[in-house]
Amino acid sequence: MRTLAVVGGGVIGLAVAWRAAESGWAVTIFDPEVGAGASWVAAGMLAPLSEGWPGEEAALDFGAASLARWPEFGERLRAVTGRSVVVADHTLTVALDAADAADLRTIAEFCGTRGHDLRVLDRAGVREREPELARTVRAGLLSPTESAVDNRAVVAALREGCDRAGVAVRAQRVKDLADLDQDRIVLAAGAASAALWPGLPVRPVKGEILRLRRRPGAPPPPRHVIRARVHGRAVYLVPRADGIVVGATQYEAGFDTAVTVAGVRDLIADAEAVLPALGEYEFAEAIAGSRPGSPDNLPLLGRLDDRVVVATGHGRNGILGVPITVDAVAALLDGDTLGEAKAADPQRFSSGGRT
Amino acid sequence: MRTLAVVGGGVIGLAVAWRAAESGWAVTIFDPEVGAGASWVAAGMLAPLSEGWPGEEAALDFGAASLARWPEFGERLRAVTGRSVVVADHTLTVALDAADAADLRTIAEFCGTRGHDLRVLDRAGVREREPELARTVRAGLLSPTESAVDNRAVVAALREGCDRAGVAVRAQRVKDLADLDQDRIVLAAGAASAALWPGLPVRPVKGEILRLRRRPGAPPPPRHVIRARVHGRAVYLVPRADGIVVGATQYEAGFDTAVTVAGVRDLIADAEAVLPALGEYEFAEAIAGSRPGSPDNLPLLGRLDDRVVVATGHGRNGILGVPITVDAVAALLDGDTLGEAKAADPQRFSSGGRT
Repeated sequence: MRTLAVVGGGVIGLAVAWRAAESGWAVTIFDPEVGAGASWVAAGMLAPLSEGWPGEEAALDFGAASLARWPEFGERLRAVTGRSVVVADHTLTVALDAADAADLRTIAEFCGTRGHDLRVLDRAGVREREPELARTVRAGLLSPTESAVDNRAVVAALREGCDRAGVAVRAQRVKDLADLDQDRIVLAAGAASAALWPGLPVRPVKGEILRLRRRPGAPPPPRHVIRARVHGRAVYLVPRADGIVVGATQYEAGFDTAVTVAGVRDLIADAEAVLPALGEYEFAEAIAGSRPGSPDNLPLLGRLDDRVVVATGHGRNGILGVPITVDAVAALLDGDTLGEAKAADPQRFSSGGRT
Repeated sequence: MRTLAVVGGGVIGLAVAWRAAESGWAVTIFDPEVGAGASWVAAGMLAPLSEGWPGEEAALDFGAASLARWPEFGERLRAVTGRSVVVADHTLTVALDAADAADLRTIAEFCGTRGHDLRVLDRAGVREREPELARTVRAGLLSPTESAVDNRAVVAALREGCDRAGVAVRAQRVKDLADLDQDRIVLAAGAASAALWPGLPVRPVKGEILRLRRRPGAPPPPRHVIRARVHGRAVYLVPRADGIVVGATQYEAGFDTAVTVAGVRDLIADAEAVLPALGEYEFAEAIAGSRPGSPDNLPLLGRLDDRVVVATGHGRNGILGVPITVDAVAALLDGDTLGEAKAADPQRFSSGGRT
């Protein structure tokens, strides 16, 4: 039986391990704390279209290809646990000023050229869909295919899937890939991957989020994922069964997962600018993680050498990227490649060197 | 051996139990979770003078009498654990506008008439003592005798003292004082005491606080306790070895210990108005508790009947009130009364009824 080491037990590592085990590999995940990294901190937005922008065609196409796989992938997760991981079906990006409203039209046009149908809403159209939003909201962009999932439910379902498929978990930190004796290795250690493959262009991008719980008397969470820009900062509100996840700050801060006072202050202020009644919610949790950032906002998915495949660098879109990453890594382990993931090959950063 | 039940294991119950055990009582504390209530949430300010106001002579005198006992009481705690519980020696109340500055002079004059010497500082005097405060601070009131203690260290030391003195702890909620078979009872269940003695005028007053941790590069915590009023709301910053405790909101919300988004938002905003660099601190904890409020901001300290002594209703000043409460309850258990605690006798609310 072919043996596979998966270094890193976030959503990427777990999902890759699960698929490989089902394909006949003897899989061992190495992670000192499975599911406790950026996957646990995430909000679970699946919104590559709403984040689209002219010039970023490759990122849009890659994200859209993964989004298209999510319904089926979500069903596989549901089959494992018996519960859906989906928390919202649509995404609504709102504009608080004229410049933002113009941007929404730009995004809609750009997505249209790539075959995705987003719809610009006026003030009344937004209010009809989400009556609790601030009266300052002047326009919206409705994306009917961009859903959101509960990232922690995804982690739990993937762990369950791995368990059932016979994946072994070793709670240890790998210091050198040469210490591993498996036939093949998938390097999926997120921002920590660079320490295991010198020169790999992945770095930690710190992000803080808040988890808020609805209290008696407070209005219900929005039905859509709500995205906005406030004082030039991106903010999003992702519904949960019992509340809202608010994200996210973004800092180049090295490996630092301390939540800052300034981060909490800004997230609350920006979220209240969009949904004024949020003050009545319970402040349940503030947490920070290190996203694995790449230089061009596409992940690093490809062969590093004959033995090692890398799957990291998903940045803010790790949850979104799970299904396509699973397919791409499965192809790579079979000696094949997945066309839709070609833009993510780490060789794009190579100047004839190691990769 | 005389037996004593102490209902409630906050700082009041623990301290009373400790003293009684040392005086020869066989003491049992009843509390489902010792030290986990308002005592754990508190900031540990000992500032009855800075909170003084003309017309509130009884509260000032009661608080001052307990403050005067704190140095010796603190030494007793230090003797138990080997570590001081003191986190600041002085309190500095600052004014951000002309009205607040006038209030500081009123407080200084009032305290002067009661024999307490507080000193009004100008802008430069404040800056010299606390250079990190906002430049908008225009005056200060320095109180050289009002210190602050680490409330959680106080809880730990009291538990240790109780252990050594042979106090028994039963992790159970008392539903009816008639269920207890001890000779005497001290009712020290904080805001929950009213449920055990119908008509007792004590109610929960919700309070939220933040615990912030200094991060590398952030300025150190202030050396004084800093108190201020921002947008009409009281805010205080109490130093800790590794950070700052920021308090506190105040709501009439029944028994509710959920931290709200609005509470966190206001505490951060008010604290940053006083100490702008606070944004760089780590947001380590947000927690809420139910203070035991009384109608007149004096506690309820006295005999309820031949068997039951009450010690609750300390409101925002439970930590401050511990030493005088211990002395008062010891006197009551001996059939005596403590003159300085006379104003706190619950009979003041009695119209010839049960008490």
